[in-house]
Amino acid sequence: MYTAELWKENISPLPAFDEAELIRSINSVLSLRNRIEKIVDEIWANDFDSIFFIGIGGTYASCQQAEVFMRGRSSLPVYAENAAEFNTTGNKRLSAQSAVIFSSVSGTTPEMITMIRRIHEAGAKAFGFVDTENSELAGMADWVISVPKQEQLKFFLVCTYLMYRNHEFDEYDRFCRQLSACLAKDLAETEKESDAWAKQFAQKTSAFLKEHPDMPHYFIASGNLAGAAYSAAMCYWAEQLWIRTVYVSAQDFFHGMQEVITRDVPVILFVGEDEQRPLAERAARFLPKVCANYTIIDSSEFPMNGIDEHFRGILSPLIIRSVMNRVDAWLEIELRHLRSIRRYYRQFDY
Amino acid sequence: MYTAELWKENISPLPAFDEAELIRSINSVLSLRNRIEKIVDEIWANDFDSIFFIGIGGTYASCQQAEVFMRGRSSLPVYAENAAEFNTTGNKRLSAQSAVIFSSVSGTTPEMITMIRRIHEAGAKAFGFVDTENSELAGMADWVISVPKQEQLKFFLVCTYLMYRNHEFDEYDRFCRQLSACLAKDLAETEKESDAWAKQFAQKTSAFLKEHPDMPHYFIASGNLAGAAYSAAMCYWAEQLWIRTVYVSAQDFFHGMQEVITRDVPVILFVGEDEQRPLAERAARFLPKVCANYTIIDSSEFPMNGIDEHFRGILSPLIIRSVMNRVDAWLEIELRHLRSIRRYYRQFDY
Repeated sequence: MYTAELWKENISPLPAFDEAELIRSINSVLSLRNRIEKIVDEIWANDFDSIFFIGIGGTYASCQQAEVFMRGRSSLPVYAENAAEFNTTGNKRLSAQSAVIFSSVSGTTPEMITMIRRIHEAGAKAFGFVDTENSELAGMADWVISVPKQEQLKFFLVCTYLMYRNHEFDEYDRFCRQLSACLAKDLAETEKESDAWAKQFAQKTSAFLKEHPDMPHYFIASGNLAGAAYSAAMCYWAEQLWIRTVYVSAQDFFHGMQEVITRDVPVILFVGEDEQRPLAERAARFLPKVCANYTIIDSSEFPMNGIDEHFRGILSPLIIRSVMNRVDAWLEIELRHLRSIRRYYRQFDY
Repeated sequence: MYTAELWKENISPLPAFDEAELIRSINSVLSLRNRIEKIVDEIWANDFDSIFFIGIGGTYASCQQAEVFMRGRSSLPVYAENAAEFNTTGNKRLSAQSAVIFSSVSGTTPEMITMIRRIHEAGAKAFGFVDTENSELAGMADWVISVPKQEQLKFFLVCTYLMYRNHEFDEYDRFCRQLSACLAKDLAETEKESDAWAKQFAQKTSAFLKEHPDMPHYFIASGNLAGAAYSAAMCYWAEQLWIRTVYVSAQDFFHGMQEVITRDVPVILFVGEDEQRPLAERAARFLPKVCANYTIIDSSEFPMNGIDEHFRGILSPLIIRSVMNRVDAWLEIELRHLRSIRRYYRQFDY
């Protein structure tokens, strides 16, 4: 009886969804605009020679999404780096004139702490989004903002303002105003709209895993969704739900990994709206010919009311994450697997 | 009777191993030294603003190994790019003063042909190692060398000479002379020495796959072995042997993927000798605690006679590939799966 009540409470109406809190969280990050601008202005005034987005695991994926967004649009020297690689290999292009942008939820990740120490030794400065106030990383950053969640959105705010300052994104103010007016509500609607489908998909996935517990799910994406697919595969499904996954970019998929896809292999393809969309579309054309168990999640199918069509490409990762939030919440229930538990991470020394 | 004869012929003494041909191939690439230097000298004389290693699939992995090798050692602006990404997203840092280095076996890869067209439109020039003479890519390159195989070695020759010219690798001549004197023989010895173990490992893997056909094998590596592990997982095992694989870097392994590793999950860890070795060593310490089916291939266990200890870090990918060549040759026999066949690649339009 008690269990049945708990179950009911958990799944009604949308599991793990608090619309008011979601809207508050997104808007609190969007309201950081002025603080972010002020910090970027200071970085700009320092006459930086390069900007490094540095992360590890999921935060590295967010760094890669920031870098690929700017790569084709900005002449600014912007790089994505893995913290553990930086700590061992270093990077000769990082100098006392470099600025590092990073994000951390816990504020205690050892690789990130070492990284900040190293870049400080080089004379560089760090701007950190550290969700946990008074944490070690919050204390180490030269500039810090401690407002939780929405990591990718924070990075995109930094990117678009950097590009605005470099005369590469004149619409920055319009972009920010539209996000502030509509993004939170749009993403909440996306979660609500995709929930029924997500529930079905989670049930199907759960049934599949019961029959095929070893079979990995293949995540494919390109452009600024590559990091989203990498995170979905590794940081959400593998880490939080203990589901086997493979991530492969749509571009490399056709140079090897495609050969192991047959009728029943589960494939999840994220299709975005940035300039790399054709790479994912190629996978979308290929998959139905060889696979009967693929799922395509296309950000273009979700309305973003009040936001200009040509801004949508930037927002694809946020749209896809909203859909996957629903899938993950239902998988937690279907698999009876709490997303908060870890087998190994921070459980013992290694 | 006929089948038995064929079988015997195939596996005796080392399957798919022609020592004389291997030594000839490696030495023919090492003898390119003067031609490579002359081309790099011309690139240098053009006062380049950046060097892009651009590839797709396996050749992209080789590009990444070249980039990570130079990242911590050279102040030269060297980047690794994926051809399909470049064709869609572009890269604002590529200019008429840029030089592109690439490699292609077939000389007909569509993404690479488009890429060369695009970089020519930007005024940049391309130096290609194109194994197939008179192929389309060979015709398009501004400088071309058509000597087959040993792609990674060719790239390392370019890298080390670039660094020599930039006063970052004074030992270049000594390095080249040692390679010319010893590398081919050393790598042939590595293949011969590892063959017995490789046969056992292939048998074990084949037996495992018979019981667990869905279970992926996890490949983990870091540094200049990251590309080697990515290639081994995707271009060799998945593409050529149709074995499910997951590639994850040692650094990101601890931020998600580790959670799905349990007793019987097959994990292959490459440990190299460059500065990122500690990242792989961390995985080597972790794995035995949670997994009873891991395999560690450590390049440091194979002698490289006549080559200075401190050059070994550069050569780890070649050593590991030599070992994996034996594993793959035995897997071809154990799995009764010809490595030359493709289910989909170049079989139909997609």
